[in-house]
Amino acid sequence: MQIAIVGLGLMGGSFALGIKRSDTKVVGFDINQKHCKTALELSIVERIVTFDEVQKSDVIILAVPVEAIIKITKNLTISKDTTVIDLGSTKEAIVNAIPSSIRENFIAAHPMTGTEKHGPKAALKDLYKDKIVVLCNIEANAPLHKDRAYELFNRLSMKIVTMDAKAHDLHAAFISHMPHALSFALARTVLSQEDPKSILTLAAGGFKDMSRLAKSSPQMWSEIFKQNQKNLLQSIESFENELAKCKMMIKKGDFEAIDQWIREANKLHHIL
Amino acid sequence: MQIAIVGLGLMGGSFALGIKRSDTKVVGFDINQKHCKTALELSIVERIVTFDEVQKSDVIILAVPVEAIIKITKNLTISKDTTVIDLGSTKEAIVNAIPSSIRENFIAAHPMTGTEKHGPKAALKDLYKDKIVVLCNIEANAPLHKDRAYELFNRLSMKIVTMDAKAHDLHAAFISHMPHALSFALARTVLSQEDPKSILTLAAGGFKDMSRLAKSSPQMWSEIFKQNQKNLLQSIESFENELAKCKMMIKKGDFEAIDQWIREANKLHHIL
Repeated sequence: MQIAIVGLGLMGGSFALGIKRSDTKVVGFDINQKHCKTALELSIVERIVTFDEVQKSDVIILAVPVEAIIKITKNLTISKDTTVIDLGSTKEAIVNAIPSSIRENFIAAHPMTGTEKHGPKAALKDLYKDKIVVLCNIEANAPLHKDRAYELFNRLSMKIVTMDAKAHDLHAAFISHMPHALSFALARTVLSQEDPKSILTLAAGGFKDMSRLAKSSPQMWSEIFKQNQKNLLQSIESFENELAKCKMMIKKGDFEAIDQWIREANKLHHIL
Repeated sequence: MQIAIVGLGLMGGSFALGIKRSDTKVVGFDINQKHCKTALELSIVERIVTFDEVQKSDVIILAVPVEAIIKITKNLTISKDTTVIDLGSTKEAIVNAIPSSIRENFIAAHPMTGTEKHGPKAALKDLYKDKIVVLCNIEANAPLHKDRAYELFNRLSMKIVTMDAKAHDLHAAFISHMPHALSFALARTVLSQEDPKSILTLAAGGFKDMSRLAKSSPQMWSEIFKQNQKNLLQSIESFENELAKCKMMIKKGDFEAIDQWIREANKLHHIL
């Protein structure tokens, strides 16, 4: 089996490292020549191939920003035996953009893992291990492609969850996309202060956790925000309402109500 | 030297474990009898003592919620050779509440460390190691007490920073107190969704980081919010303005502006 990884960054590079096996050729493609060079140096892929050869592979992994996934998908020329798997963080716009001629081949996947880093140097062999992957609208896939996707995600030791793309995007807005917006906004709020350096001297673990996501890639995240615009707005507004409640109680000096408000927040950790 | 730890939770327990030495007796006091028992079982302190004996110690560490620090401070009866050090996360209200009779003895300290956990079982020997401790309005302290505080924090391998209490509270609002409010609000926003369990099934590292602080103690944090009310409101409003900018760009569909907005957020990490 030949697997072609399109996009040799954190997600694609880690997929390549995790999926390697003696009976599997893992080859790569990236429009960034530096990434190609680094991916070869780090033995992430065994060869860099042309896009023509990508299209002739048994499996194509699309590990590029979500707008690029749509662009590539529209122009793919593949046989009925080629499986395409995208790893994008949004699913509805991607699913809607798949040409009907390759709909059965195209597995819409979202592995719930990552780090704030990017590029092939950030790739980790175990990035996917024991994590969840959401497969969306899997009923649209032919058995060959569905079975292959299950086999590959099992090989990465992932837990597979299936979901409707619409539901996925709403959930992802609340649990991933909106929290990224909060982290970006927090970083900018602190930077906008008169003396950010002296403030940051004092940063402890809490601030570091809350601002880690603010390191994330602008291209990747502006495209996710674009594709999940409606749900993201809804989730930001829910958050704003919750923070406004907190502000109002602080303004009024009602700290017993704040105590109760925090107690309710603590309940998250009975679930998580 | 005898050091009495008042409050045998995460901060007090960790201080006790880190400061131990053959020439130093570390004794404890807590109004929670379970914490006293656990602290003895875990050898965090060598004895539980009465509050009378606390007041006769060479050093008293106040590792209790910030409202309790003020209450205890107002009723302390100590000799001029006893050093009192509080570890509260707010400093201005505490400094203002110190009776003038013991002002020279009282070191207002804020160690920039912690975890979301509480109680003596959460205590860690190295919680303070290599972290920053902010000492506020240190010019009000007599040399004996200042020297002792420096010696103790050096023994914990901490980096000492001095600061005006007013400036400390403003910085702490932006870098610690407001981020806690965000984490509580995020947890509540996700819990308020129709199906929080299925959303949380999908939680990856990003959400876990952003919601970790939401586990923090309601009593401790409602009291911090009370004492830092004005700065906290200012920092929440700055954050709200920043998030509103983000929302407006998403609403307009201006994703190039979002890309630039994220690029600016990324700059935090040239400093941190």
